[in-house]
Amino acid sequence: MSYVAPLKDMLFVINELAGLSEVNTLPGCEDASPETVEAVLEENAKFCSEVVAPLNVAGDKEPSFWQEGKVTTTKGFKEAFKAFGEAGWQGVQHPVEFGGQGLPKLVATPCIEMLNSANLSFALCPLLTDGAIEALMTAGTDEQKKIYLENLISGKWTGTMNLTEPQAGSDLALVRSRAVPQGDGTYKISGTKIFITYGEHDMAENIVHLVLARTPDAPEGVKGISLFVVPKFLVNADGSLGERNDVHCVSIEHKLGIKASPTAVLQFGDHGGAIGTLVGEENRGLEYMFIMMNAARFAVGMQGIGVAERAYQKAVQYARDRVQSRDLAGSSGPVAIIHHPDVRRMLMSMRAHTEAARALSYVTAAAHDAAHHHPDAAVRKINQEFYEYMVPVVKGWSTEMSINVASDGVQVHGGMGFIEETGAAQHYRDARILTIYEGTTAIQANDLVGRKTVRDGGATAKGVLAQVRRTEEELAAYTSGDLAAIRNQLAAGSRALEEVVDYVAGNMKADIKGVFAGSVLYLKMAGVVLGGWQMARAALVAQRKLDAGDGDVKFFQAKIATARFFADHILSQASGYRVAIVDGSAGVMAIAEEQF
Amino acid sequence: MSYVAPLKDMLFVINELAGLSEVNTLPGCEDASPETVEAVLEENAKFCSEVVAPLNVAGDKEPSFWQEGKVTTTKGFKEAFKAFGEAGWQGVQHPVEFGGQGLPKLVATPCIEMLNSANLSFALCPLLTDGAIEALMTAGTDEQKKIYLENLISGKWTGTMNLTEPQAGSDLALVRSRAVPQGDGTYKISGTKIFITYGEHDMAENIVHLVLARTPDAPEGVKGISLFVVPKFLVNADGSLGERNDVHCVSIEHKLGIKASPTAVLQFGDHGGAIGTLVGEENRGLEYMFIMMNAARFAVGMQGIGVAERAYQKAVQYARDRVQSRDLAGSSGPVAIIHHPDVRRMLMSMRAHTEAARALSYVTAAAHDAAHHHPDAAVRKINQEFYEYMVPVVKGWSTEMSINVASDGVQVHGGMGFIEETGAAQHYRDARILTIYEGTTAIQANDLVGRKTVRDGGATAKGVLAQVRRTEEELAAYTSGDLAAIRNQLAAGSRALEEVVDYVAGNMKADIKGVFAGSVLYLKMAGVVLGGWQMARAALVAQRKLDAGDGDVKFFQAKIATARFFADHILSQASGYRVAIVDGSAGVMAIAEEQF
Repeated sequence: MSYVAPLKDMLFVINELAGLSEVNTLPGCEDASPETVEAVLEENAKFCSEVVAPLNVAGDKEPSFWQEGKVTTTKGFKEAFKAFGEAGWQGVQHPVEFGGQGLPKLVATPCIEMLNSANLSFALCPLLTDGAIEALMTAGTDEQKKIYLENLISGKWTGTMNLTEPQAGSDLALVRSRAVPQGDGTYKISGTKIFITYGEHDMAENIVHLVLARTPDAPEGVKGISLFVVPKFLVNADGSLGERNDVHCVSIEHKLGIKASPTAVLQFGDHGGAIGTLVGEENRGLEYMFIMMNAARFAVGMQGIGVAERAYQKAVQYARDRVQSRDLAGSSGPVAIIHHPDVRRMLMSMRAHTEAARALSYVTAAAHDAAHHHPDAAVRKINQEFYEYMVPVVKGWSTEMSINVASDGVQVHGGMGFIEETGAAQHYRDARILTIYEGTTAIQANDLVGRKTVRDGGATAKGVLAQVRRTEEELAAYTSGDLAAIRNQLAAGSRALEEVVDYVAGNMKADIKGVFAGSVLYLKMAGVVLGGWQMARAALVAQRKLDAGDGDVKFFQAKIATARFFADHILSQASGYRVAIVDGSAGVMAIAEEQF
Repeated sequence: MSYVAPLKDMLFVINELAGLSEVNTLPGCEDASPETVEAVLEENAKFCSEVVAPLNVAGDKEPSFWQEGKVTTTKGFKEAFKAFGEAGWQGVQHPVEFGGQGLPKLVATPCIEMLNSANLSFALCPLLTDGAIEALMTAGTDEQKKIYLENLISGKWTGTMNLTEPQAGSDLALVRSRAVPQGDGTYKISGTKIFITYGEHDMAENIVHLVLARTPDAPEGVKGISLFVVPKFLVNADGSLGERNDVHCVSIEHKLGIKASPTAVLQFGDHGGAIGTLVGEENRGLEYMFIMMNAARFAVGMQGIGVAERAYQKAVQYARDRVQSRDLAGSSGPVAIIHHPDVRRMLMSMRAHTEAARALSYVTAAAHDAAHHHPDAAVRKINQEFYEYMVPVVKGWSTEMSINVASDGVQVHGGMGFIEETGAAQHYRDARILTIYEGTTAIQANDLVGRKTVRDGGATAKGVLAQVRRTEEELAAYTSGDLAAIRNQLAAGSRALEEVVDYVAGNMKADIKGVFAGSVLYLKMAGVVLGGWQMARAALVAQRKLDAGDGDVKFFQAKIATARFFADHILSQASGYRVAIVDGSAGVMAIAEEQF
């Protein structure tokens, strides 16, 4: 088996750290009982391992290709996507009224992780479709919902996000695509969009493009951008497919990784105009897009965790099989390299990063559920703030770490890791996009600094740190051993992060460039400290279970050991980050541009 | 121009940090005057930029290919290699008596850096040839020297190192290739060697394979390995090429990067036996191979620096050209992204790592020259110890950092970085081999821990740290500003490194696995602290020049700013490393193998 879902760890996190039993009490989440959730995840794991994972290497070797405007996906993708839709996996988190399963984000999140572990390229199509569903659900007209939602949720049609243009990447103020009202409620859309994931393919009957464009009288900048839905095939009143719309794929990109996922250049309106309808109100496109983007950003964070888990499993397998050199403690002959301390260190680092990011993201998903379903508005608010603070951290940190984890995976394989047939290199190539799309790490960090930290004077961040402190207090019950060591590093890390939050919130006005010089470091440090916090919580739960003689002893011991490793090897980086952010801001901008 | 050699920085390091004027006084190094060296480097830079660098992308797009036992290299490689040989570049550091230029390693080192910046795949052929020259020079018979050296040094023939076999990678004890004496002074060699760089190609008339194999009565393990020279074409008494030898390339690998460099599977002796001659004495093969390997490892370190420099230059260019988003300090429209703090931070990190590794490696090269040429045996000895301590650090750290630098280079390009046509991704793929071949980072770290630290009880390491302390004392003259900040971080870093050296030297017997659990971290930390030391020395020189009103003000200011950045952003990681190594060793081996 090329991928085995880490169900035991997932269920531990869902139940013990993210509090499924509490989520289950929320109005609308009554179906998500621990038993149901376990059954759903088992079924999803089976589908991902058996149907989707085996296509991963083929997708890399025989990528999607373009011919005369049509994109043919890798053999097997079409059938797998059909099965995916029919099994209801596109609809896990979407409303029952439109054919979804209506399960909480806490349940959808591990499903998304598994799909991405199985096949990053394949998983992108549902990921983007989720974004389109989210946007239409929030801002679409009843008519749009009626036409599109059911078909998207069933996997019959798929969705895309059309933001980027050649001159407008991170900076959407530069979007130039035009939308001219036709007087009949429709608009004619024209322009070029690039980097459109699954912008054209053969896996579904129709493709629903959500497109940012400007109406003729729109103001300049981001306040003049509207959102339109532009289907590949127009839809007749009876729901059947009508004429081919004027949106055409003129090429796809030749990429470093995720090669099975077609990255399209789309030309709108070259032959008379592509017909689209407005989503929500004019000039509020960016706002709606942000809804999609927050969901998509979180999901890209899950991609990081997914590829990290897959790279880890592959490295473990190789380390068990490859025999080389004697054991340092003495052995009669060469041993499997998993016995060598540096191989073990790399595996532990891969494992610790992945488990910590998983815990942080599932806890974030649970906060999303509480933010949407809790009866108490004050509880909703605090959970929404927590969720919003975490989204850039989950996206940025999980993806940044995934590149290093995939790189360690190559290293564990030695020379074989550099040979493409081995497969370790694919993860290293695939992972490299994750810190770039749906907003680079710097864009996530801008969000973390600006909207999520400075805007409320660091209050949300401090609130999270207060929660960390409570975990430290609980750890204080253990005065020696692993939990005491974890507490030491967590305390040092959280104090350092608090200093950084004060620095960020306090220096924005006086030294904006200095603050942003450390923005990505702040994001990574938040990932390290808050990931370490979740591992510390996990260790506490595990220790209490052990103390109570309750459950899987080996699993709990391993969890504590992994948390200890995280504390000593990863949390310990916090002090260096603090220096770089607080003392190091001056050096970043010190050299004149022409001196580079 | 796709690559411009950083001659100003190279000459600064050579003259001000590595002490060319002192090297120039060594017996045998009298020709290496500062003027001559500058002229040599300028000429080499021209050759690398104009002839070799333009072939880099072509080599990636149209790699070497295998057909019926023959390997055809990328179009243009053959002609460029001919020009390389004819211009004398293969011979820079080799003896005049065999046609070389007889220049110090301190001069050859920047030449090797430039060639690797220009084209990592191309540079591998001379790199391996240097190794073969080195081995034959040290251990070859007069006959072997006569037959091979001149042709290798002129670039007419090339050399290879044949160590790895399918079951014997990092562990050479497992080598199985056989060498049976024929009674006429020759041996018949048989076996399979894999991962042989430039093991077959069309760039030279003959290929001189240096091969590890066992004679029939050899003891088991590494003490039973002998070194043989096995040419592709046998050489007649008059020096002309004779019969084709029985060594054949049965395939080449499909790799993640350095695609133009053919990585061969060589089959020796399948058709009657490959004829070889013994190098040096039987069963001392590993010892000779280590001579080659030390030189080759140092050179692979230079590959890391070379690719980091190239990736940096590419990222700077893109950051200057790409216009996106307004300046944080306010601007009328979008600006080049080099003005954005996080882009600047990435460029500074790339630059600081590259400059520090360059300084450390050139200083190491100068120690090699003193170790070989100084009239005083005591001075030779201390320089040899310094050199040997530094080789694993230069190899390991320069290559590890180069992967991160190349990854940052992709990130600076945003979405374009993921598109292969842009070229940034090639560096990310190419760099990934550098921490693996010529000994993985773990193998370098074993060397650093075992032979270079524990064997002398940490004395050499402490000697280096004493030198760092002298730099700290010199920095103490500056009580505020950048130099004072640099001193703070250098002092903290060197104290942390000293603790780690004590831990490594002191715990080897009691806890060998614990020590080796931190071996790679110790290596990286040594790179960080000693790289930071060299940057601190550079800042001192620059400040004194500024104080004296002497020379290039902007260059010296930039050097100080880069050193300051290194101190705050990179040296500051030392404390985290110390925790991971000293406190974190327990966690590495804590989980049972079956729990992974």
